[in-house]
Amino acid sequence: MSFLLLTAILLLGSEVSAFFPDCVNGPLNNNTVCDTSASPLSRATALISLFTIAEKINNTGSTSPGVPRLGLPPYQWWQEALHGVASSPGVNFSGSGDYSYATSFPQPILMGAAFDDALITDVATIVSTEARAFNNANRTGLDFWTPNINPFKDPRWGRGQETPGEDAFHLSSYVHALIDGLQGGYDPKYKRIVATCKHFAGYDLETWNGNFRYQFDAQMQTQDMVEYYMPPFQSCARDSNVGAFMCSYNAVNGVPTCADPYLLQNILREHWGWTNEQQWVVSDCDAIQNIYLPHEWASSREQAVAAALNAGTDINCGTYYQNHLPAAFDQGLFNESTLDRALIRQYSSLIRLGYFDPPESQPYRQYNFTDVNTPEAQQLAYKAAVEGITLLKNDGLLPLSLSSVSSIALIGDWANATQQMQGNYYGQPPYLHSPLYAAQQLNVTVNYAQGIGGQGDPTTNNWLPVWKAAEASDFIIFAGGIDNSVESEGNDRISIAWTGAQLDMIGQLALYGKPMIVLQMGGGQIDSSPLVNNPNISALLWGGYPGQDGGVALFDIITGKVAPAGRLPITQYPASYIHEVPMTDMALRPGPNNPGRTYKWYNGTAVFEFGSGLHYTNFTAQIKSSIQQSYNISTLLAKCNASNEKYMDRCSFLPSALEVAISNIGSVSSDYVTLLFLTGSFGPAPYPKKSLVAYQRLFSISPQSIGTANLNLTLGSLARVDEQGNKVLYPGDYALMVDIQPMVMVNFTLVGEPAVLDEWPQPPTNRKGSGVEGLEGYFVGGYGSDVAQETMS
Amino acid sequence: MSFLLLTAILLLGSEVSAFFPDCVNGPLNNNTVCDTSASPLSRATALISLFTIAEKINNTGSTSPGVPRLGLPPYQWWQEALHGVASSPGVNFSGSGDYSYATSFPQPILMGAAFDDALITDVATIVSTEARAFNNANRTGLDFWTPNINPFKDPRWGRGQETPGEDAFHLSSYVHALIDGLQGGYDPKYKRIVATCKHFAGYDLETWNGNFRYQFDAQMQTQDMVEYYMPPFQSCARDSNVGAFMCSYNAVNGVPTCADPYLLQNILREHWGWTNEQQWVVSDCDAIQNIYLPHEWASSREQAVAAALNAGTDINCGTYYQNHLPAAFDQGLFNESTLDRALIRQYSSLIRLGYFDPPESQPYRQYNFTDVNTPEAQQLAYKAAVEGITLLKNDGLLPLSLSSVSSIALIGDWANATQQMQGNYYGQPPYLHSPLYAAQQLNVTVNYAQGIGGQGDPTTNNWLPVWKAAEASDFIIFAGGIDNSVESEGNDRISIAWTGAQLDMIGQLALYGKPMIVLQMGGGQIDSSPLVNNPNISALLWGGYPGQDGGVALFDIITGKVAPAGRLPITQYPASYIHEVPMTDMALRPGPNNPGRTYKWYNGTAVFEFGSGLHYTNFTAQIKSSIQQSYNISTLLAKCNASNEKYMDRCSFLPSALEVAISNIGSVSSDYVTLLFLTGSFGPAPYPKKSLVAYQRLFSISPQSIGTANLNLTLGSLARVDEQGNKVLYPGDYALMVDIQPMVMVNFTLVGEPAVLDEWPQPPTNRKGSGVEGLEGYFVGGYGSDVAQETMS
Repeated sequence: MSFLLLTAILLLGSEVSAFFPDCVNGPLNNNTVCDTSASPLSRATALISLFTIAEKINNTGSTSPGVPRLGLPPYQWWQEALHGVASSPGVNFSGSGDYSYATSFPQPILMGAAFDDALITDVATIVSTEARAFNNANRTGLDFWTPNINPFKDPRWGRGQETPGEDAFHLSSYVHALIDGLQGGYDPKYKRIVATCKHFAGYDLETWNGNFRYQFDAQMQTQDMVEYYMPPFQSCARDSNVGAFMCSYNAVNGVPTCADPYLLQNILREHWGWTNEQQWVVSDCDAIQNIYLPHEWASSREQAVAAALNAGTDINCGTYYQNHLPAAFDQGLFNESTLDRALIRQYSSLIRLGYFDPPESQPYRQYNFTDVNTPEAQQLAYKAAVEGITLLKNDGLLPLSLSSVSSIALIGDWANATQQMQGNYYGQPPYLHSPLYAAQQLNVTVNYAQGIGGQGDPTTNNWLPVWKAAEASDFIIFAGGIDNSVESEGNDRISIAWTGAQLDMIGQLALYGKPMIVLQMGGGQIDSSPLVNNPNISALLWGGYPGQDGGVALFDIITGKVAPAGRLPITQYPASYIHEVPMTDMALRPGPNNPGRTYKWYNGTAVFEFGSGLHYTNFTAQIKSSIQQSYNISTLLAKCNASNEKYMDRCSFLPSALEVAISNIGSVSSDYVTLLFLTGSFGPAPYPKKSLVAYQRLFSISPQSIGTANLNLTLGSLARVDEQGNKVLYPGDYALMVDIQPMVMVNFTLVGEPAVLDEWPQPPTNRKGSGVEGLEGYFVGGYGSDVAQETMS
Repeated sequence: MSFLLLTAILLLGSEVSAFFPDCVNGPLNNNTVCDTSASPLSRATALISLFTIAEKINNTGSTSPGVPRLGLPPYQWWQEALHGVASSPGVNFSGSGDYSYATSFPQPILMGAAFDDALITDVATIVSTEARAFNNANRTGLDFWTPNINPFKDPRWGRGQETPGEDAFHLSSYVHALIDGLQGGYDPKYKRIVATCKHFAGYDLETWNGNFRYQFDAQMQTQDMVEYYMPPFQSCARDSNVGAFMCSYNAVNGVPTCADPYLLQNILREHWGWTNEQQWVVSDCDAIQNIYLPHEWASSREQAVAAALNAGTDINCGTYYQNHLPAAFDQGLFNESTLDRALIRQYSSLIRLGYFDPPESQPYRQYNFTDVNTPEAQQLAYKAAVEGITLLKNDGLLPLSLSSVSSIALIGDWANATQQMQGNYYGQPPYLHSPLYAAQQLNVTVNYAQGIGGQGDPTTNNWLPVWKAAEASDFIIFAGGIDNSVESEGNDRISIAWTGAQLDMIGQLALYGKPMIVLQMGGGQIDSSPLVNNPNISALLWGGYPGQDGGVALFDIITGKVAPAGRLPITQYPASYIHEVPMTDMALRPGPNNPGRTYKWYNGTAVFEFGSGLHYTNFTAQIKSSIQQSYNISTLLAKCNASNEKYMDRCSFLPSALEVAISNIGSVSSDYVTLLFLTGSFGPAPYPKKSLVAYQRLFSISPQSIGTANLNLTLGSLARVDEQGNKVLYPGDYALMVDIQPMVMVNFTLVGEPAVLDEWPQPPTNRKGSGVEGLEGYFVGGYGSDVAQETMS
């Protein structure tokens, strides 16, 4: 690559580059890429046939210079939109006025707690709408590196907040709904935007005890991989036709994921049928550089880039491809056709986004700032927060009758939270309604004191205003917990207990004997058992990162304007849990130095288990569908084969959805999240304690009324994964239960021979790297000085 | 305590409060405290005899309100001055003009590398001079919470940079020199300032694998404690008459240090004779709160404050004493005389600082801003950096002949370091001369590129300017390493390797084949073996945190204006070391999961061992003193007994200092640090590989000239510590060696019976806490609501 071109890349890196190619008057106007009647594949192929090899390599990075001589504009691939259009290299908020903000929804961990797939689709549709509006103003690209769909396995993980929770089934369902909204259906003519499922795979550790993400090798059994780490990605690729994947920093079983053909080719593309020409894989940022250092998996920089390209990593976030593919090509480490494959995927994707098509024929190209943060979007951001907020303890104080309250003490480092409410990967919000703001809208005196100077503040120097506020109030709300100062990208948590300072302050506040609520904020859970056990603390709410209207959502729940119905999407472990299992241990089942992970396998007693969440009313449940005592496996399979379903695990178990009637027997109208768990003894021991197999949120069930959940139950959700990773339907005793304290239960058996629903591609026997024997020799050899000159001058 | 008084504390907390009491016209003018002819003890006793119990308790915190009715002004105890007067609650820099800056010396880790005790005294004298000037302008108090003298045991420790290194003997000698300069001698009539030795004891962990400093219990053997963790503190207390100690956040063997009478009374005060009435102990900030939570050592808040006060913690950094001593007093948990003891220590200390004395009789009260950052101080800051910078590799390129260079590429995130050069605990410096600044003073073209966006930046996006700079230059300097983003208070390191991104960039730069130097910056060491092994990297310098003139110091060494003579004050371990030993393991000797710690015990091969440091010339050594083949232990002790030395371990071994002649046999004038090590087989096995027993820096030894080191060798430095902690002189074979690759060696034996030089006070057999059985009950009981009312209303 020439020095001039590299310079071009650099210069473009800092600019927004969402110009569209001119297919009317530009140099490409006679190329097939501009022919809307041609197939995307032939259009992309025609385009890149015009590229020189240097031009091809130049366009393998996240900051693509395009090809000026062809009128192909530069393109920035790196946009973020985790819970709203977010600040990132390709997103450019204006300083004021139009396009100075976008709707900021709650973090996924709180939206996961809503257990409401329709909500997720709605949120994602707003995000993609706003993204298109920004794109039309030349303020963003068309692909977004969201969602983060790694299961939140270890409570320490700093990025767990970015995920919907710990359960693989839940994540699979959530992400299916999300991609629908982001991309605009599962096979639209024009995609709204391209979503990117990340980080494939096994990425859930930032930094722990000398391990860090750029270098970590996640050692996992095939059974755990298929049962836990893969399902959300299978949902993305096989079931939701997502446009892009991101490979991760870590290695899996010895191979950095971006260089692993087993993951990227055998599983992702072949086994999951993710073979459309417009589907591409991008590396996490400079994960390809990491293949060389610090992974030391490749023996040279050229080996690293060639291994990644050959494995199927089509775009390099960073410049490593652009820097080192030339020498790798000279060394014959990859074929030009492999490079072409990567570029065809990229441009096919842009073609599917209408990049080369007349704007007037595309509805999304008509969006503008009037489509951003509409009243509907604002209402949805509020609704998402309300639906997720989870009531963990209530001695009857809540809902709070405002007529009985004249003054509220609002205390803690979340009391006046604004940006804190966004968590990470955020954009510019239209507003941030803090808890303090919300309290001040009520007709009561609010006595506010921050007290705690932040997570890292163990001192008592600012405690005096706390006592003054408490003294002056007839009601106390403590809003604390954790935030991005202790859980974030690059930073895993070192404690899952409340800090001593916060716990001491809460304890002293409780001594006043006044009615008191604690808001436990942040993404990861904190062991709240001291609060549960304190009789002077009346109520405990978990609020996650509730987004732009978070304070209002919290206070509307507190005052009973809305009834809570969120459920914990993760286990709240005792504080000692993190001393019982290394963060590096990828096993789900209990074993030496591992008490088991997630609600399925943890063999201790959770403080609050997955699915916990109280209401302001009471419910009973009844299963309305008839369930046979016994089912024959071969009969089930025969029915499945007779259907049009391509994948047996997606076939329905019952003739129609399982109907569960939920009766509100209390006095408050309320949503209810129907959680259907499966338990029993079937398949390979040990057995999980239970497994979530279906869920549905029911809305506003009035007192003395009934809501009905229609739960689709697939053969796959009855199946177990064997040690080879095959998904198998086993004979045995099964039970279905509604809710975590089962309100109703039904038993049945499967009889007959085990049947494989999905045969897993086995990993290659030798998964070693190309090998670097220590670092001693790595600087010399394998990179001739003439090549260096060619690359660098 | 009344609410009003607490309010007063709060209001004063944000103000500077260094007013002096008015002994001429104020209410105290007839009190003995104003009688300069009375003893400090009687003066302090007279003062506090006027206090009510509430007034006494009010003045137990770091922010003391004084007693307005007595004309006793408020006083802020919390000032910092780690390597210059530093920003802290009691230090108030002005925005511009006078008092807007103070001299900023290198971090102690680099000053430790100078191995020059006289330098340390000089630096400390400047610091105390500037502190007094600021105090006279009412911009700081008179006591400073420095030095941090915990040995830098684990390479991960984020605050290791604040210490002079890993060797207990070195630290003891260094701190003795430091206190001389800070306090103005060891028993002056008026102290310049009060120094505070911290953190007593066993504090060298911030956060590691679920352990954090507020909660960590450092389990250590008595032998390790006495041999390694205690000597610097013994030097402070017994040998240097330091004015103050700080107890630490952690516990030692089950007891939080601030509540431990064994540490604070039996060892510190009784065994070390630290019993002057003006010597006080302050808690680390809210370490007393931590005794309750998160240590859970005390069963109530009142138990926590009473335990600390009774143990001998005289000042509470924070407000916990002020908040909870009233209730503890009502519960009869301490006597008023114990409170008086704490206050007498505080005010005696202020009396010794001339706080109550006429200013005209005190020279330090005459200092003003003309005494701040004088040319001499600037020169000393430069000298301290130059003396510490350590040459680790040199293939002959250095010193760099500027006549052969027309252009230099200066690359890396330290290349334009400014505030980075100060490390932590810094103030406002007069200037910060970066490496880039220094390079630009030379008559060469400087091509600068930052390249790496910081420690957390794994991306290659800014690498292009790096190649351009390298391409355009005939000489390459890479300035990188670590900084406060990865080592700091609260943050231990998770890797002691170079980041993959930096290592890759260095490697690619080396491929140019141009002359290349790497500057390894930061306090903790980084495994530089890949650089050592790369033949294209000509030289490697370690520059620590070099302070306000750090860039100039580095370039003066590079260009040969000054010859390097610094020595590593810590071991540079291989990157794998941190996987071999938990950070929580306090043992020095090798054992299971512990390859041994420090150069004395590490059983692997260091990348660079303690004491490493090259020169631009060559030296030989000769021992001039005559050493007998054999010494009789009883004879040595008899001589010692005949001397006036109170402590046998301080008695000299030889009749006079050991004379070592150092010959410069090369062609460059250079300093030389004489390091005298002891080895042999004597005392309890296992034996350390060697032990530093004396050192002296010699200055500017001309080519073909000889410098002479006069090394005092004490009986204590020949002794070993047994398992009970006794310091014993043992019969056996001894050898003295000069330098780490011994240039000369001499053997001798000790004969006779072992003799105890220092009998260690044994720990109490039961060191359990007052006990909290889990957290369940901690909120209720032990704190009656009437007491709460008294405290809080």
